Amino acid sequence: MSNIAASIITIGDELLIGQTIDTNSAWIAKQLNAQGIDLLRRVAVGDEKAAIVNALDQEISRASLVIITGGLGPTADDITKPLLLEYFGGKMRTDPRVLEHVMGIFAKRNRPVLERNVKQADVPDSCTVLFNRMGTAPGMWFEKDGKVIIALPGVPFEMVCIMEDEVLPRLLQRFSSDAIVHQSIITAGEGESFIAEKIQDLEEALPTHIKLAYLPGPGMVKLRLTGKGADAGVLSAEISIHQAAIAARLQDIVIALEDIPMEQILHRWFTSHDMRLGLAESCTGGCIAHHITQVPGSSAYFMGGIVCYNNAVKQQILGVKQQTLEQEGVISEAAVTEMAQGAIKALGVDYSLAVTGLLGPADDSEKVPNGTVWMAVASANEVQTKKFTFHYDRIRNKEIAVSMGMLMILKFIRGK
Amino acid sequence: MSNIAASIITIGDELLIGQTIDTNSAWIAKQLNAQGIDLLRRVAVGDEKAAIVNALDQEISRASLVIITGGLGPTADDITKPLLLEYFGGKMRTDPRVLEHVMGIFAKRNRPVLERNVKQADVPDSCTVLFNRMGTAPGMWFEKDGKVIIALPGVPFEMVCIMEDEVLPRLLQRFSSDAIVHQSIITAGEGESFIAEKIQDLEEALPTHIKLAYLPGPGMVKLRLTGKGADAGVLSAEISIHQAAIAARLQDIVIALEDIPMEQILHRWFTSHDMRLGLAESCTGGCIAHHITQVPGSSAYFMGGIVCYNNAVKQQILGVKQQTLEQEGVISEAAVTEMAQGAIKALGVDYSLAVTGLLGPADDSEKVPNGTVWMAVASANEVQTKKFTFHYDRIRNKEIAVSMGMLMILKFIRGK
Repeated sequence: MSNIAASIITIGDELLIGQTIDTNSAWIAKQLNAQGIDLLRRVAVGDEKAAIVNALDQEISRASLVIITGGLGPTADDITKPLLLEYFGGKMRTDPRVLEHVMGIFAKRNRPVLERNVKQADVPDSCTVLFNRMGTAPGMWFEKDGKVIIALPGVPFEMVCIMEDEVLPRLLQRFSSDAIVHQSIITAGEGESFIAEKIQDLEEALPTHIKLAYLPGPGMVKLRLTGKGADAGVLSAEISIHQAAIAARLQDIVIALEDIPMEQILHRWFTSHDMRLGLAESCTGGCIAHHITQVPGSSAYFMGGIVCYNNAVKQQILGVKQQTLEQEGVISEAAVTEMAQGAIKALGVDYSLAVTGLLGPADDSEKVPNGTVWMAVASANEVQTKKFTFHYDRIRNKEIAVSMGMLMILKFIRGK
Repeated sequence: MSNIAASIITIGDELLIGQTIDTNSAWIAKQLNAQGIDLLRRVAVGDEKAAIVNALDQEISRASLVIITGGLGPTADDITKPLLLEYFGGKMRTDPRVLEHVMGIFAKRNRPVLERNVKQADVPDSCTVLFNRMGTAPGMWFEKDGKVIIALPGVPFEMVCIMEDEVLPRLLQRFSSDAIVHQSIITAGEGESFIAEKIQDLEEALPTHIKLAYLPGPGMVKLRLTGKGADAGVLSAEISIHQAAIAARLQDIVIALEDIPMEQILHRWFTSHDMRLGLAESCTGGCIAHHITQVPGSSAYFMGGIVCYNNAVKQQILGVKQQTLEQEGVISEAAVTEMAQGAIKALGVDYSLAVTGLLGPADDSEKVPNGTVWMAVASANEVQTKKFTFHYDRIRNKEIAVSMGMLMILKFIRGK
């Protein structure tokens, strides 16, 4: 059995001038992969007829499945629908279910329905309509010479909704594929070269149908084993053996055996140990709390955080001493220690993390060089501190600090 | 003068299985656009030789400039460098400056240098080396039949650093282009269809060298006017006239005349009015504070926030009454009002925003339906509240709530 090959075409000038980051492609790629469909290429083109037709010709010649997103809205820059009508032939018809849905949306919002909104219900009669619960632009499923071409709106949550409701179930029915299985090992504390060296013999011994990839991130390296085979169960068992061997070799630096974010690892530990966490964030400005609360059910262990951007907040809510700030400075081991201990009390938690630093741009009024960050993790009767120096810009330094902060909590609790 | 055309090729299996979102392409696209270089296409392919060579052939045939990212690391899955050596001919040489830099990085970190790290300093003698201050993999600049092909590492901050240090200045010297000018109008409160209808005559009257695009976001629609012409100053003045006409027509819903994020608009107002802001975030979990503190210098007006995920934190730090929580529930107008007023006091600020809600998944123990969010914005003697209902999943609902929260502050202060 050989897997069917797919391409994604994303349409929109905003993708070519850098105004929008393409998150749609990654999401679609993940779903296709989970169904054992091989994504060959992703192509982005502008709102221009010749470029879109050219991309369609090329990708259809390569792939059995082509998914297009974008250009289906109600405004003049949305040219995909008439273009697809011309490309696949047929004529426009009004879809009654879509029309009713569009009218309903405007009625619910008490807005007048414009001619251009009504036109959203027009579709080429050569396609199967893919209903869009979340918006006015329906998706379209075309077939040509045994190949499937699907057009979806570019608004991310509308695209996701149509994919889940309409596209993925149909693809599963239509194409049978070899299984694709991924297994991951997340490590922290060593670089990818060091890891590659340490597991070189294991990597060389991998069979040809299993590949190893290295994905470095801030303070961490993800290893991904990917295999293809007829039987997902057999394949999974086979990859597990390699995963276990690599994990055993790297044991000290392994922090998880699956591809989950750090906040998910913390979530599991805290909820299974019935412990509570609180934060005191200065320079990370609430971003660690934001990550932790992305996980549903985090309220079971995360009590909250103090975003103590100003020194007065550090003093009044966390009890950091005036004297400490004056003598040691706000970016100091003494200040971050008092912040972490203050968070334990103010938030009524078992563990806390505190972060204070200068992420950039440089500020001569601070006593420390740009990029200096102090962190402290505390329990009722223990505090561990660490000083970091980050060398990038404000945005990147914040990302790394967030990642290193969560890693610091993890190491502290695992050390217990 | 006609503009040179460019393509971007991103390399990596992680892009085709959806493990990584491609932020590099958007960043590069923005820089090229600012230099008047037309980006035609962006293509992503896997770590596979035939696919990379095929993409190179095709994009080089289309474009005068091709930028490749990814596949230059020290591990076995990085195959771009040997492939480029074969593609462009020549042989490997060791670059002494890169070698010294690599050795220096490992010496500074007190790590042993491995053979595979040393090899990072090997480059095809057919390229010009693009020095990488931020990492061990140098960029490479090739020329073939008058076309320029540039290979860069895929790690985002390394790519950015080489682009800024080495690539952009060289491109400016090498290619002269027509100017590309963008001007934006950010609106809030109406949908794109409504706007398109209202400005239809103005849109139809645009000259052919100026295009209008609609970019809808949560609660907002961005309009972007893009023009091309020989003289940036003349073009800019011309687009400004159209921008002013559209803005005048839409006046009530216009919130900015440039493409800047909401946190930047808030930043300007608060710093120029010498006012202070504080937050009380429950369901948004610190994400509004995170956005506000992305702007350098936000400490001038942003005092901090209370991420009051747990009710005890709402009561103890913000002074929300037990009775209110019991009688009205935590997601109620009464609770959010007390949170906003409590934040004014606890953080010592002139204005506050409070947010409490249920973003999902559904929770039967709450008194309100899933997606219900109450917000309150307060000054010392005034409170404005609003109830929202969001219909998406947890992650998307949070994004919308963050956007609507900042918009609510903006409307409140503009109303003054």
